[in-house]
Amino acid sequence: MSLLVVGTLAYDTVETVFARREDVLGGSATYFAIGASRFAPVSLVGVVGEDFRKGDLELLRGAGVDTRGVEVAQGRTFRWSGRYEGDWNKRVTLETQLNVLATFDPKVPAAQRASRYLFLANASPEVQLKALLQVEAPAFTMMDTMNLWIDHSRDALLAVLRKVDAIVLNDEEARMLTGERNLIRAAGAVLGLGPRYVVLKKGEHGAFVMGGDLHFALPAYPVENVVDPTGAGDSFAGGFMGYLAAQSRHDPAALRKAMLYGTITASFCVQAFGVEALTGLTRPKIDERFDELLQIVTV
Amino acid sequence: MSLLVVGTLAYDTVETVFARREDVLGGSATYFAIGASRFAPVSLVGVVGEDFRKGDLELLRGAGVDTRGVEVAQGRTFRWSGRYEGDWNKRVTLETQLNVLATFDPKVPAAQRASRYLFLANASPEVQLKALLQVEAPAFTMMDTMNLWIDHSRDALLAVLRKVDAIVLNDEEARMLTGERNLIRAAGAVLGLGPRYVVLKKGEHGAFVMGGDLHFALPAYPVENVVDPTGAGDSFAGGFMGYLAAQSRHDPAALRKAMLYGTITASFCVQAFGVEALTGLTRPKIDERFDELLQIVTV
Repeated sequence: MSLLVVGTLAYDTVETVFARREDVLGGSATYFAIGASRFAPVSLVGVVGEDFRKGDLELLRGAGVDTRGVEVAQGRTFRWSGRYEGDWNKRVTLETQLNVLATFDPKVPAAQRASRYLFLANASPEVQLKALLQVEAPAFTMMDTMNLWIDHSRDALLAVLRKVDAIVLNDEEARMLTGERNLIRAAGAVLGLGPRYVVLKKGEHGAFVMGGDLHFALPAYPVENVVDPTGAGDSFAGGFMGYLAAQSRHDPAALRKAMLYGTITASFCVQAFGVEALTGLTRPKIDERFDELLQIVTV
Repeated sequence: MSLLVVGTLAYDTVETVFARREDVLGGSATYFAIGASRFAPVSLVGVVGEDFRKGDLELLRGAGVDTRGVEVAQGRTFRWSGRYEGDWNKRVTLETQLNVLATFDPKVPAAQRASRYLFLANASPEVQLKALLQVEAPAFTMMDTMNLWIDHSRDALLAVLRKVDAIVLNDEEARMLTGERNLIRAAGAVLGLGPRYVVLKKGEHGAFVMGGDLHFALPAYPVENVVDPTGAGDSFAGGFMGYLAAQSRHDPAALRKAMLYGTITASFCVQAFGVEALTGLTRPKIDERFDELLQIVTV
């Protein structure tokens, strides 16, 4: 079934304790779309600057991403740079240049307004809402967000939250949004804000999903050689939504399996810089790791 | 099948952000034995001082613990006091008084030397080794330890580690013991030191067990109201070993289930001060939570 993502495309400069890479193709919608494209056709709505490399658009198309909704605006592509400390869980943002993102007004192409599965990747709540209102009758919509919007655009964020089926948050974001330190309580408080499901990611400690009819928890896939955690959350969401769209299902049984596919997609993502590990990824490789994780969690 | 634990009995003074309790019955062997006694008969070898309250010995016996191996020595019972910060994962030790523990020479009663399941609860590696050598042919032995022994008695600890089937460690201890920050690598390095299995506990983030023929990971049982985390690790081990002893099995399938029973036993432990929540615990209550956790982790 049709899957649409709205979010950012970026050039990232990433420093880890082992290496540094400049102007790597990144952005929330990029990671999501390439991750999801391993499962189902996906359309991307976003904006890039005139400096966006032709090869990167071709890379997205080559991955099976419909880029008709990627607008090329005057100016430079959104840029983010950050550094990871020895502990991968600590990330320092060094610089953010909004560039063309500052005036982004998302336009969902007519052909994509009937999309049944919709992911509002990390972007301002205003952009998320504008995009959401252009999709006619999505069967299942999930949103992401970040500390910046929780801090500075709380009301707008809460307005979007009331209109989606699910939200995906990391532990820090869930605590910021709700003021609850205990993650089970935090997840319960998020459900009180409107969505039917909350997916809570804990990095190397796994993730859980909670809703009125569902509580499922999963450890992370054991990765020994993390290279670059950038995009882990977005590619998790990509595997999660990609699986649901491919199945045309979002019942609790499908959501449980989607948690594994999200986990597996993210586990590949972090093993290389940028989207490198995702573009070469095939469904058989994903399913091999799926079976391995299933074995690890089966009582 | 017969289960024996060797370790400490203590009076703990515990401060949390909500309350403070003085001279609460505690100790590694106490928590283990009461936890394990919900599953199988358990014998305890340890030492207390002349100040040990008769009521506490009766409490152990009432819980089904064979206390013939509890020696009453001249002097005062071992004392520990500590404080938990708002984040339950941070514990500060305020004071440790070894008292009768300083000269403890464990003596396993003749009737208990044929015990088939043996747990060397947290105590000095010297005490652990002395006890281990008195048990004739245990089918399955697991040990615990702590940062103090990893730092100051490393060689003695490694000597015990070569003689046991399994070790249970928390994340911090596994990193200290191996120098590996990544917990999967740390677990692999521990296996290189001798034991067949390593159980790695991550507090609210769950636990995993690794061995040549087993890799199983489990999230924690979701507890919203933690009252006192003291003894969580020991009662985890109690549920784990108690289940194995009750089944007379320690194959990979039994170890997977034992991880759930350990998790459940610990989840009750932390919901009250000291052993309060464990003494009132019945097998039906445990099994109810077991079924709930099974539901949460089943794909």
